[in-house]
Amino acid sequence: MFVEPCLDSIRDAAARIAPHARVTPVLRSDWLDRRSGARLFLKAENQQRIGAFKFRGACNAVFSLGPAAAARGVLSQSSGNHGAAVALACALRGIPARIVVPENAPQVKQAAIREHGAQIVPCGASQAERDRVCAQVQAETGAELVHPFDDPRVISGQGTVALELLQAVPELDAIVAPVSGGGLLSGIALAARALKPRLALFGAEPQGADDAWRSLRAGRRITGQVPDTICDGLRAQLSERTFAILSRLCDDILRVEDSEVRRAMQYLFERTRQVVEPSGAIALAAVLRYPERFCGLRVGVILSGGNLDLSALFPAEQ
Amino acid sequence: MFVEPCLDSIRDAAARIAPHARVTPVLRSDWLDRRSGARLFLKAENQQRIGAFKFRGACNAVFSLGPAAAARGVLSQSSGNHGAAVALACALRGIPARIVVPENAPQVKQAAIREHGAQIVPCGASQAERDRVCAQVQAETGAELVHPFDDPRVISGQGTVALELLQAVPELDAIVAPVSGGGLLSGIALAARALKPRLALFGAEPQGADDAWRSLRAGRRITGQVPDTICDGLRAQLSERTFAILSRLCDDILRVEDSEVRRAMQYLFERTRQVVEPSGAIALAAVLRYPERFCGLRVGVILSGGNLDLSALFPAEQ
Repeated sequence: MFVEPCLDSIRDAAARIAPHARVTPVLRSDWLDRRSGARLFLKAENQQRIGAFKFRGACNAVFSLGPAAAARGVLSQSSGNHGAAVALACALRGIPARIVVPENAPQVKQAAIREHGAQIVPCGASQAERDRVCAQVQAETGAELVHPFDDPRVISGQGTVALELLQAVPELDAIVAPVSGGGLLSGIALAARALKPRLALFGAEPQGADDAWRSLRAGRRITGQVPDTICDGLRAQLSERTFAILSRLCDDILRVEDSEVRRAMQYLFERTRQVVEPSGAIALAAVLRYPERFCGLRVGVILSGGNLDLSALFPAEQ
Repeated sequence: MFVEPCLDSIRDAAARIAPHARVTPVLRSDWLDRRSGARLFLKAENQQRIGAFKFRGACNAVFSLGPAAAARGVLSQSSGNHGAAVALACALRGIPARIVVPENAPQVKQAAIREHGAQIVPCGASQAERDRVCAQVQAETGAELVHPFDDPRVISGQGTVALELLQAVPELDAIVAPVSGGGLLSGIALAARALKPRLALFGAEPQGADDAWRSLRAGRRITGQVPDTICDGLRAQLSERTFAILSRLCDDILRVEDSEVRRAMQYLFERTRQVVEPSGAIALAAVLRYPERFCGLRVGVILSGGNLDLSALFPAEQ
């Protein structure tokens, strides 16, 4: 049904999303360079629309639809960054978006989805309930389901971040990106390997949700782990598709502790004045934890998102 | 002794600091545009080196020194962003920096100064003590005192922010910048008035430290107010020099409450994923408080700095 993602489909995606997505800046910090022993090029996807790289993939999927499919609208069951990304992309194309959201999802996430005019379809909290409601909506409306990572259009969209990064810094030696379901890392791997075969490529994963690390070591997909991490964007598991791509193209997965993620977040706040969510700081945390891998290299570090509950910093007013 | 600042001296400053300072990005936010009813162009000086526009002025002053004066080094009595800026500029030129700092100044500020290799000269907490120690160090070393705002080299350096902003967005209708001692706003006023005489120009000032507002209304410098505001970078008062420039060139001063500053900070964190300190968020707070002044206009908003105590967000680890 889909064309498998590759450099061509990623280049197509770049052209397709160009009118809508931002070319995010690449930030530098002398202090972080000294701290890491490497030269870091921080790709600030926290400044992407909706505050995360997810807009790239969702935008590519939504604008790939033919007119008839588009008219039936798009469906997603993510209440996180992907859901907000689908909602905005559909608003930009002027087509209906329906997001299946568990009734117990945080109000702030539901508000982010509603803000872009998407319809929230409430469901029970279990995955089975979500799947059931999704299937029902799909049957009723004919809406196109856009999966957060197991979709070639989404993977191709995420790959555009590597095109931009390598255009800005062609001499990169390595790239480190977070891995969860593997859509972002797969897209980056396909683009970067095609453009720079010898570039070193790493995923960064929480120790408490390390299915990608386990799977790549085992040579088969290891699932069923109950994730335990502050990185709320990194709790998904590889699909067969992303496992196959990463097995072939990714050098290694680097695991880090939550405490290291928190410290990396703090460095990013204080030294680059960027708001980055835990999942968005994990690639920097990995570079700082494994300096022997990066010493003296030019390293692209993907700051994947910046959507964070800041209530500790901004208590509700009296 | 000094040439008065003007468009030429600001252009000279831009060339002088170009090898060292960053051309900071201009950020956009659809959400903030809707919220304000204007089109906002956010000049992200929180991404300037040392995290604040102050590096521009300090860098211009330090690199303006002749070889003999430079060899004697530079002296400052600011323990805030200006002190850190002088320290970094001197490090880049390879000359000694001495910063007179009250013994009760926060450790985090002292660390920021030491990080750039400056010498901290401790003194008592009172202004008289600081002045006495400064004069003593100056007499002993012949070091050049660089005032945080009452210095044409510093004002010219700060004015470069307006050159960059108007180059990036030539069609601006208005600029809003924080005002404290008035160095930044004076530099911007001199550059912007010369390039775009009809551009509207506003200072943003905390209600609890509104000497500039009072002074411009009275037609003479009003001093002696005890500042009461969370904007720790906006507690200084205009000098005769900056008062004269702003009286002539600035359209008005807009006063805002601390609660409005806090809300603007939160919007910047959540909507642009930028860490901005209270003083750096006040220009946005002013635009949001006085929508009638800006409705439908293209407004340059100076986010002047991003150095913030984030201990609420990152409690020390156990």
